[in-house]
Amino acid sequence: MKINILGTATTKFGELWDVSPREMAREAMSNALRESGLKPSQIDALFVGNMLSGILGNQANLASLIAEELGNPQIPAFRIEGACASGGLALHNAINSINAGQYKTVLVLGLEKMTDHSQEEITSALSAAGSDEERMSGLTFPGIYALMAQAYMQQYNVDEETLAAVSVKNHYHGSFNPKAQFQSPITVGDVMRSPKVADPLKLLDCSPVSDGASAVVISNDVSIKSKKPVTIIASEVATDTLGLYNRKSFTSLMSVVTASEKAYQATGLKPADIDVAEIHDCFSISEAIAVEDLGFAKRGEGAKDISEGKMTLFKGKTICNPSGGLKACGHPVGATGIKQIVEITEQLRGTAGKRQAVDAKIGLTHNVGGSGAVAAIHILKAGGGNS
Amino acid sequence: MKINILGTATTKFGELWDVSPREMAREAMSNALRESGLKPSQIDALFVGNMLSGILGNQANLASLIAEELGNPQIPAFRIEGACASGGLALHNAINSINAGQYKTVLVLGLEKMTDHSQEEITSALSAAGSDEERMSGLTFPGIYALMAQAYMQQYNVDEETLAAVSVKNHYHGSFNPKAQFQSPITVGDVMRSPKVADPLKLLDCSPVSDGASAVVISNDVSIKSKKPVTIIASEVATDTLGLYNRKSFTSLMSVVTASEKAYQATGLKPADIDVAEIHDCFSISEAIAVEDLGFAKRGEGAKDISEGKMTLFKGKTICNPSGGLKACGHPVGATGIKQIVEITEQLRGTAGKRQAVDAKIGLTHNVGGSGAVAAIHILKAGGGNS
Repeated sequence: MKINILGTATTKFGELWDVSPREMAREAMSNALRESGLKPSQIDALFVGNMLSGILGNQANLASLIAEELGNPQIPAFRIEGACASGGLALHNAINSINAGQYKTVLVLGLEKMTDHSQEEITSALSAAGSDEERMSGLTFPGIYALMAQAYMQQYNVDEETLAAVSVKNHYHGSFNPKAQFQSPITVGDVMRSPKVADPLKLLDCSPVSDGASAVVISNDVSIKSKKPVTIIASEVATDTLGLYNRKSFTSLMSVVTASEKAYQATGLKPADIDVAEIHDCFSISEAIAVEDLGFAKRGEGAKDISEGKMTLFKGKTICNPSGGLKACGHPVGATGIKQIVEITEQLRGTAGKRQAVDAKIGLTHNVGGSGAVAAIHILKAGGGNS
Repeated sequence: MKINILGTATTKFGELWDVSPREMAREAMSNALRESGLKPSQIDALFVGNMLSGILGNQANLASLIAEELGNPQIPAFRIEGACASGGLALHNAINSINAGQYKTVLVLGLEKMTDHSQEEITSALSAAGSDEERMSGLTFPGIYALMAQAYMQQYNVDEETLAAVSVKNHYHGSFNPKAQFQSPITVGDVMRSPKVADPLKLLDCSPVSDGASAVVISNDVSIKSKKPVTIIASEVATDTLGLYNRKSFTSLMSVVTASEKAYQATGLKPADIDVAEIHDCFSISEAIAVEDLGFAKRGEGAKDISEGKMTLFKGKTICNPSGGLKACGHPVGATGIKQIVEITEQLRGTAGKRQAVDAKIGLTHNVGGSGAVAAIHILKAGGGNS
């Protein structure tokens, strides 16, 4: 499978009080189109990854609405939703539609507007990704991931300081990213002194609530040339139970293991072949577990490896979250999966500026919904496809 | 394109107070699987069409939840949303994923649970399919379709009695459908005497609020044999502006015209080749306009043709809404697009019982979201594919 990435763009992520969802979408789409050199009329279909437009915005025809903003009358448009993996799932369906021969060139938009609402509304809305049983027992997502962190720390004898290194790395990376919500480095001490959210997770172990939109233009039309080609060579999705209580392990996500194994198999690549990865670090524990599930670290050694700099820019081997990840870059949930593609594309083109990973040829994105109830894995490669 | 339909099922549609969304999904999925002769483990992916689980049920990871009910661990699962066309859009993406070679055999579920909520909640939730501008001016969907009806009646000199014939036909058809929400015939007088909802639309011009789930198992795996094969030979989607105020015409939906033209072109078929069709008659006016947009009737003659019995079982040429349509069968919004496929499959297999259309070989489904902001058209054919 070879899908060419022709254009990418992302808005700044953050508390964007002064922009509407439509305006964010327009900015991301028009910039991605500009980079691709294409006009709206050359786009065959639109895929929108979004979680909360219905719950928070009472808008349940979002893809048609965004199609109006794109300015291509009658274009087929779809909203794909799978909680915080909505962006990755939208991309997966977009890729399938191209490989089916149904469309040639499509635009995939990830979009979320969260900060216009109260903390209570946002907490309630985000709980919509969870299981009824865990919600009824009062668990919110920080609580669910705190249980995973407790299990991980006990099982592998890991302390809170080691876990905190995930946030420290991602804030360091975010300090090089002008689109990141937080651009200042933090220390392990900062994380340790930040307020407890759900023991052992503290405020600086958690990704923020954010607004943002990201867009990619992808195609298999070989007549459209790209100056710095990047191709998507694998797209795999898998699910798991919504509730942790139904799973064999709290310290591994079967959805991620299954989808990434399929992606490695489809490409013949091994985890060691991945130069750079964007990881769904909604909490520090998420990235520690993710790097193990993806095969970048041995079981129980993810947090330790991260704390030793093995996944840090300029010194690590597999650079994780060069963008700053969800932690520093921000987490507008439907946009995240597409922002990851934007970041890896820049890394593989060598256009990531101050946060450029050295000699990055192959990259991976890891986008998770709920506490691992769904995962989307994409593998990208520098160089042209179909040629 | 040839996608085989291996199994179909639908729950009864109606006010299903005593069943949860999970139970409805389980019933539809297990019956569709039973008909296909397949086990859950033989399903490669799950697509769920649903509009309101987020807004009304605060559930935003629905596809993963339904995957649990299906009982196939780690299966890729997607929720596709496009207002009342969610079912048709889910099927379109499912078909693309098969034609891409990504999956071979997939299950598509349409699901909606509406009646557990107050009228106010439902009205507000359904307005989520509309444009901000029309909502701000106080328009709900009956109001929007009433404007279309007013324009249609003036433009073509059609009276309310003629429009009422749509509901009379669909209730007549529904009287043969044990799964329909309403199974009693009505007269033009009944429609005329029913309370005004939005002039000129009366209660019996409007489809009801309903619960229900429908499922289809589709595949391109030629090793799986079906006793009464039916194939999907076209799947096309198009959009339009959300608001009527942005459109050139109130009496035609450009999304339907565009998608159906593509479907006819893809198959080499003409409107006259369609023997049986399921039409998105959310209001009586919708079907009058639809049969014109689909080419079954000349402009301005849709309501008249229906009133003259040209689309009625046992006497018409192009039988429209043999199931009873949204009007009599019920309209659980996300399920409707899949129920249409279930009905046309039965018609083409010749297993539709008392509501069997004579000699039906080719069928069409017409699924619309919002007031035409999105439309999905599918064409089905009796007989096996890939053989």
